[in-house]
Amino acid sequence: MQKIKLKNINTKAPQKANKEAYKSELNKLHRELFNLQHLFYASHSYSLLIIFQGIDTSGKDSTIRNVFSHVNPLGVHATSFKAPCDMELEHDYMWRIFQKLPEKGMIQIFNRSHYEDILVPTIQKTLPRQLVEKRYDFINAFEHHLFDNKTLILKFFLHISENEQKKRIQERLTDPIKKWKYSDEDIKSSKKWKSYIEVYEQILNRCSPEIPWVIVPADNKWYRNYLVASTIVKQLKQLNLKFPNKKNDK
Amino acid sequence: MQKIKLKNINTKAPQKANKEAYKSELNKLHRELFNLQHLFYASHSYSLLIIFQGIDTSGKDSTIRNVFSHVNPLGVHATSFKAPCDMELEHDYMWRIFQKLPEKGMIQIFNRSHYEDILVPTIQKTLPRQLVEKRYDFINAFEHHLFDNKTLILKFFLHISENEQKKRIQERLTDPIKKWKYSDEDIKSSKKWKSYIEVYEQILNRCSPEIPWVIVPADNKWYRNYLVASTIVKQLKQLNLKFPNKKNDK
Repeated sequence: MQKIKLKNINTKAPQKANKEAYKSELNKLHRELFNLQHLFYASHSYSLLIIFQGIDTSGKDSTIRNVFSHVNPLGVHATSFKAPCDMELEHDYMWRIFQKLPEKGMIQIFNRSHYEDILVPTIQKTLPRQLVEKRYDFINAFEHHLFDNKTLILKFFLHISENEQKKRIQERLTDPIKKWKYSDEDIKSSKKWKSYIEVYEQILNRCSPEIPWVIVPADNKWYRNYLVASTIVKQLKQLNLKFPNKKNDK
Repeated sequence: MQKIKLKNINTKAPQKANKEAYKSELNKLHRELFNLQHLFYASHSYSLLIIFQGIDTSGKDSTIRNVFSHVNPLGVHATSFKAPCDMELEHDYMWRIFQKLPEKGMIQIFNRSHYEDILVPTIQKTLPRQLVEKRYDFINAFEHHLFDNKTLILKFFLHISENEQKKRIQERLTDPIKKWKYSDEDIKSSKKWKSYIEVYEQILNRCSPEIPWVIVPADNKWYRNYLVASTIVKQLKQLNLKFPNKKNDK
C-alpha cells in the first residue's frame, strides 16, 4: 500500500482551476444535493455518516455551513464534538459517538469525531501507545460494522498549509465577524503543527482503504466546498434510489 | 379574551396577494434567515424552539423543508415526533421532548410535539378528562419555564380546509413522488376532521396568549411558507444580536 505523506499532497486548488466556473458548479451541486437528500430520506434504505476532520482553522464549520446550506434539517443532523465534558468522560470514549449515529434515511454530519480520541491523547501523550493501538483497531472494526449494516461513511480530511493556518488565526484575532470563533487553543495547537500532521498521517494510512479518507486541498474555500459537495453528490447518485410506493417509517 | 374559532379564520392567502411577489420575498427571507441563524449561533445567548402542529397533510414537513432549506445544520436541528415507541412509553409523555430541547445558540424544530399528547388521548378518549387537564397545566408551566430561561418559543398551527386535505390525500395516493408519504392513518384521521378541529381550538385558546400560537392559512403553500419565514425572521431581528468578541462555547 502506498503510504500517504501529507507534505506531498497539495493544499491549494489546481493551478488551472477557474474559481468562477467552480462556484457556478457548486451552485448546481447545492440544488442536486437538496433533491438527492430528499430522495435519500424518502427511500429510507441507508444511513449516511459524514465525518469532517482537520487541523484547527482548516474550515470544518464553514465547509458544513456551505455544503449543507440547502438541505432539509428533518433529514440532516450535524453534531460538533468538543472536548469531552464530565458526563461524557464517565463513559467510554465512543459512547457519545454511539448516541449520534444516524437512523435510516438520515444524514448525520460529525464535526470532529472519534478520531479526536486518537489525535489528542497521542499528541498530549496521555495514553500508553498500546491503548492508542486498541483505539485504532476498534475504530476500524466499528466503521466496518456500520458499513455492513447499511450506514455509508464518508470521511473528509481538510488539508491546509501551515501558512494558511497562521493567516486564518490572524483573521480571527482582527475581523469583527470572525472574532467569536477565536479561542486561545488556536494558538496553542498551531505551535504543535508538526505533531498534528504526523498523527493525521498515521490515521489516514491506518483507517483506510476500505472506508477511505478523502483528502481535500482546503486552502481555497471555493475548491474545498466544491470537492466535498461533488463527492457527496456522486456517492448519493451511485445508490440509484427510488421513491417507495408507501410510507415505510413509523 | 376573544375566543379563537378556526372556522372564522381563513385557510387561503388573502385574495389580493400576488403569488410571484410573495415567492420573490420568500427568496429574500431565505437569505436573511441564513445570516440571522449564523448570528444567533455565534452570539450564543438564546435558544429557539419552533413548534409545528396541524392536521395530517397540513404541510408540516414541507414547510420545514422549504423555510429551513437555507440554514446551517450545525445550528439547526429538527425532530419529528411520531407515535411513541415502546421505549418512549416507558417514560412520562414529556421525556422525549426534554431530550431534544435546544442548547444556547441552537434552533430546534419540532415537527409535532407535546401537543400530540393532548390531541391524541382527547380524540381517542384514552385518558380521563382530569388527566388531560393536568397536561394542559403542565405544558403551559413548561413553556413558561423555558421562556424564563432564555428559550424563545414560536408555535405555528398550519390551518387547512377539509377540502384541501381531501385533495392532498388523493395526491399521495396517485403521485409517484408523493406516494412514499401516504399512510393508512391519513384516511382514518381525515374521518375525524371535526374532532381534530375541536381539540385544536381548545389548544389554541388555552395555550396562549403569553406564548402565542401563530395560525397560518396553509391551503396555499407559497403564502404559508412566506408567513412562517417572515415570522421567524422578525423574531430573530428583534433580538438585536451582536457577534461576540471571543468564543464563548466550550
